Amino acid sequence: MSQHRIEADYLVETPDDPERTVATIAGEQSNGTFVRVPGETPKLLERAAARVVKFEVIDRFVGRRALPTAHPTPDQEHLTRAKFTLSWPLATLGPSLPNLMATVAGNLFELRQVSGLRLLDIRLPEPFAAAYSGPRFGAAGTRHLAGVQGRPLIGTIIKPSVGFSAQDTAALVAKLCAAGIDFIKDDELQADGPNCPFNDRVAAVMREVNACADRTGKKTMYAFNLTGDVEEMKRRHEVLLRHGATCLMASINSVGLAGMIELAKFSQLPIHAHRNGWGYLSRHPLLGWSFTAWSKIWRLAGADHMHVNGLANKFSEPDDSVIESARSCFEPMFASKTCTVMPVFSSGQGVTQMPGTYAAVNTTDLIVTAGGGILAHPGGPEAGVRALREAWDAALQGVPQADYARTHPALSMAMRAAV
Amino acid sequence: MSQHRIEADYLVETPDDPERTVATIAGEQSNGTFVRVPGETPKLLERAAARVVKFEVIDRFVGRRALPTAHPTPDQEHLTRAKFTLSWPLATLGPSLPNLMATVAGNLFELRQVSGLRLLDIRLPEPFAAAYSGPRFGAAGTRHLAGVQGRPLIGTIIKPSVGFSAQDTAALVAKLCAAGIDFIKDDELQADGPNCPFNDRVAAVMREVNACADRTGKKTMYAFNLTGDVEEMKRRHEVLLRHGATCLMASINSVGLAGMIELAKFSQLPIHAHRNGWGYLSRHPLLGWSFTAWSKIWRLAGADHMHVNGLANKFSEPDDSVIESARSCFEPMFASKTCTVMPVFSSGQGVTQMPGTYAAVNTTDLIVTAGGGILAHPGGPEAGVRALREAWDAALQGVPQADYARTHPALSMAMRAAV
Repeated sequence: MSQHRIEADYLVETPDDPERTVATIAGEQSNGTFVRVPGETPKLLERAAARVVKFEVIDRFVGRRALPTAHPTPDQEHLTRAKFTLSWPLATLGPSLPNLMATVAGNLFELRQVSGLRLLDIRLPEPFAAAYSGPRFGAAGTRHLAGVQGRPLIGTIIKPSVGFSAQDTAALVAKLCAAGIDFIKDDELQADGPNCPFNDRVAAVMREVNACADRTGKKTMYAFNLTGDVEEMKRRHEVLLRHGATCLMASINSVGLAGMIELAKFSQLPIHAHRNGWGYLSRHPLLGWSFTAWSKIWRLAGADHMHVNGLANKFSEPDDSVIESARSCFEPMFASKTCTVMPVFSSGQGVTQMPGTYAAVNTTDLIVTAGGGILAHPGGPEAGVRALREAWDAALQGVPQADYARTHPALSMAMRAAV
Repeated sequence: MSQHRIEADYLVETPDDPERTVATIAGEQSNGTFVRVPGETPKLLERAAARVVKFEVIDRFVGRRALPTAHPTPDQEHLTRAKFTLSWPLATLGPSLPNLMATVAGNLFELRQVSGLRLLDIRLPEPFAAAYSGPRFGAAGTRHLAGVQGRPLIGTIIKPSVGFSAQDTAALVAKLCAAGIDFIKDDELQADGPNCPFNDRVAAVMREVNACADRTGKKTMYAFNLTGDVEEMKRRHEVLLRHGATCLMASINSVGLAGMIELAKFSQLPIHAHRNGWGYLSRHPLLGWSFTAWSKIWRLAGADHMHVNGLANKFSEPDDSVIESARSCFEPMFASKTCTVMPVFSSGQGVTQMPGTYAAVNTTDLIVTAGGGILAHPGGPEAGVRALREAWDAALQGVPQADYARTHPALSMAMRAAV
């Protein structure tokens, strides 16, 4: 594609003529008016208008609209679904991520001609790569800080999510570090509440993490949730550096894009991007964002780790969607800069999902977080961590898990307990 | 409600037992695990868990799920829709808007028990009012700067959205100022692209605005779109102050919450909050956010004007939804601080929608932007502005528009031209 154009792929459903609908979308997202106004010359349109560069009908059927509109909606009508690609000249907005969002994901979802619209993918020209850092740690930097090579980082989340004091949290962390865990994260509901202040939690947790590292040589990576306004995140980042922390976490839908760009500018630690709220952006298959398109914005903005849910998760997302999301984390964004990030698998994860996870992504550059899978292992947390490592050993060696479990009791117990 | 608890109202659809589903949502958004973990005592749960404080089944029916899940989904099944209210102790998160978002609108939308979930409203305890500025201008401050009393601000949007240079924009602005317009805004697609750089546009536009003000005593308010990262917004804000601008605009879904909070901290001008992207947050009636809930977050963060679409708009939103949004802008958020904002009516607006708009909101504390309604008026832009003012005069005097038009030719022409 051109070095000077932005492209976005969409899926649309419409009761109207699909080509006319797509032309309307292109108009709304460039010249932006349906009335001819003074000064809008054909030359101006040629230079500034969005172009439809691909258009393909994928389904025509009689049925019910995916999304309601203000129009009267019959129960059954002729509908068309189509995929199309819009292209914008970079010169109208420049390499700006916030303005890109308004362009590729602005008013278009509200158009009445549209009874379904989903942004599937985006492709950005090279000037965007120069304008933003992208992930500054990614898999290599994260592995270096966590001291883990050749397998995924095995991690967990502090649960219960809320109610623990800083001391309660640190006591659980001490146990998990002693169990040899690679990675621990705050829950997204825990940031800096009066019951568990951020600074107290960092001090108490890092005392345990550092003590264990001094004793064993292994420093567990802890992702502290610093979600807040820009000044709060800056202050909290300073606290993290002072205590030798090696990772931070932010709820990116809460912080937002300008906040994330600012965070990436000052952060000296990997950014663990939590996607909570993702459901309202994506849950309807004919509305909102695909993970592939959405995550590219945050990858370029500076995320190092991105949540992708997990196989056989406790949420509503099917496995094929999880796999597509995880794979998209490894797709290079630019010739000059891949912006690849580590996918984070979570939600009801245990040894049973590990062979399928490896088969799906064919790499170990990922983070797996298991809650019950570690803390509820009948042999205790150390056996829980060991079981997950053994599950990966088996997968990497191409040995069926059940066979490997015969000589590996921690894995065997985990399989029997289904944790 | 308690001074120390946060409340959120939801609409849920589920194929499961609705009370159990609601309990699951409360669990996910507080203790956050389905496996009993060490340290999770009944006392901790009592202190930290979210409580279901209201629950009401509103419909039981046989039909098809609003949202798909990973489960096999029959075409027809028993479904329940219910409204419920969750309550959280403030002490688990503190008065933090970004962390509020993760709590009231986090992972819950992804739960598999849920085949529809929409956040309807939120109520925040007083400490939130102390933690954020809220709108610092609102209607009174905006009226003072625009010099408009007793009627809505009549405005327009620069169209075509993109393609105009700074000089083209300024030439159109000169014409609009001469026509006596109160308010002009950039389009959300125009921020700081190479074809129309922000600084050039501000200089060229404000030269015309200031010249017209010197000549006529009326200074048109122009909302410059400074959407960008935090540092860009700070620099652009300085440029605005230097040229005597009286308003700024930000695409709040592009900037995000931490960026908006930062903007509100340094801004010395009213913040015109553009909601583009709202469709992906709200278009499905059983997913995402109601405007009432969503706008409260941005009102408290510092928005002064909020887009609400318009009656008989060109988008998909029905009038009752537009009216509900507009009215919510005037509902006080706290006893100590109302955080009321000016609703902005736009999209295909002209004289015909004005009586209904006034009847719906019963106030003039609003902004109406008309594109074709002003620029395509057969008598020219001055007649377009006059026609809209006359439409409001008629509405405020309780005179039917058709009667008033008999003695007001600009209004009469607008009605005949249907602009």
